Amino acid sequence: MEIISGRRIADEIQSGLKAANRVKELVPCLAVIDIGEFKDNDIYINLKRKAVESIGGTTRVVKLKAETSQEEVLEIIRDLNQDHSVDGILLQLPLPAHLDAERELFLEAIACEKDVDGFSPWNRGRLMGPQPEFVSCAALACLDVCRRYLDSLAGKKALLVGNSFDVVQPLALMLIKEGCSVCIEPEYKPEALAGADIAVIEAGTPLMIGFGDVKSKILMIDAGFHWFNDKACGNIDREAVAARDGYLLPVPGGLGPLLIAHLMVNLSRAAGRKK
Amino acid sequence: MEIISGRRIADEIQSGLKAANRVKELVPCLAVIDIGEFKDNDIYINLKRKAVESIGGTTRVVKLKAETSQEEVLEIIRDLNQDHSVDGILLQLPLPAHLDAERELFLEAIACEKDVDGFSPWNRGRLMGPQPEFVSCAALACLDVCRRYLDSLAGKKALLVGNSFDVVQPLALMLIKEGCSVCIEPEYKPEALAGADIAVIEAGTPLMIGFGDVKSKILMIDAGFHWFNDKACGNIDREAVAARDGYLLPVPGGLGPLLIAHLMVNLSRAAGRKK
Repeated sequence: MEIISGRRIADEIQSGLKAANRVKELVPCLAVIDIGEFKDNDIYINLKRKAVESIGGTTRVVKLKAETSQEEVLEIIRDLNQDHSVDGILLQLPLPAHLDAERELFLEAIACEKDVDGFSPWNRGRLMGPQPEFVSCAALACLDVCRRYLDSLAGKKALLVGNSFDVVQPLALMLIKEGCSVCIEPEYKPEALAGADIAVIEAGTPLMIGFGDVKSKILMIDAGFHWFNDKACGNIDREAVAARDGYLLPVPGGLGPLLIAHLMVNLSRAAGRKK
Repeated sequence: MEIISGRRIADEIQSGLKAANRVKELVPCLAVIDIGEFKDNDIYINLKRKAVESIGGTTRVVKLKAETSQEEVLEIIRDLNQDHSVDGILLQLPLPAHLDAERELFLEAIACEKDVDGFSPWNRGRLMGPQPEFVSCAALACLDVCRRYLDSLAGKKALLVGNSFDVVQPLALMLIKEGCSVCIEPEYKPEALAGADIAVIEAGTPLMIGFGDVKSKILMIDAGFHWFNDKACGNIDREAVAARDGYLLPVPGGLGPLLIAHLMVNLSRAAGRKK
């Protein structure tokens, strides 16, 4: 397996954006709404902050207490929508339990031209039309890797395992448009890999996919994330599959940095449009 | 093959709606915007008009010349959005060539609470969330048949052939949520039917699927429509497959009436909400 460095591609993308933003005199501003006390949120927000810095932009984190009411969150979103110094708005997920049922309401409240995550119903729905606007960064990152490592997508067979609204559903729609055969399985079964040119494994358990499962000449994208024996890992055991012929976007160092790079693409685009 | 009568199910649904609308004192009003001179449009609009009548509602057809400008169409949509006597708004497709590039713009202009076709980006995007609003009637009709003829959907294998935004894409998303394994193929290949519990064949040629292709115990939905030897037909040759064990929603008399019945469900819902 050739291990694809998501980190390297992400750095490449971000360097390009930095240069382009400098030429266009753009200083993109990302607002992140962070509600409650999720330990991992700090890690993810810091990664985004560093990425924004790397493209010459700024980040504004709006930190809210777990007890924040629905109305207060909507008020803050409305303020950020109106604020001309803000280019992109991102609601850090997950939400505290008492607000989780309001997720759609919040995503919908984000102005579609600032919805750099591509999570608002309007942007999700544009994906089914001829001209999508902002698309989920994780799905864009997967499509990017497919384009880089396969000659053409039309006629290719793609297996997607999972059902998420941010990876599997938008990626399925994009691959259908590319003329791929797309199979979506709720759970992983080794036999589903037969004949697949692309496999994106989101639903799974730590390191569940090993040597015996993996076919030759396949592009595998690990879209799982687990803490296992105190180490970050995905669904695919990269050591075990190393001897196979093909490509692997592994966890860690794969989809994580690459999706943040695509968030930076969306953010720069949002900033460029406004000008 | 047991031939499923889309007509019979449609009549059942519409009788139920008629009774329910009478009890709720609803007289749903559907506005249809019909631009240009497409011969088949009159046929389709008359079928919808009759269906609306059958549920105790009224239809208002806004007939526009082929030369109508983009701005005039948008103006009419805005007027209908504001008009409290109108419950549902439908843009009859196809559009004249000079307006075709504006299709998304028009669909987007329709107020989402009157978008009974479920074609606006907002409604298409809601489909990826936990609470869809109005969903494409053709996709709803297919799901309805699946629910009526299969014990449960979770774990079933569905094959969808085609890539349309009104049948294949929304149906794929709904079946993924039901826990199905969903395979979407851009073109029909007989081997793709292997192991399928459900097959929805939209892309195809007249009567291309015959006895040799069809497996036993399958639910087949013909979502093709062709004029062939002066007769309406679908992708599946119902005479040829008659001896197989399974269920077929055929063309004609299958998806056509059933999708109009689901349009009536959406229209009655839109009218009921407003009250």
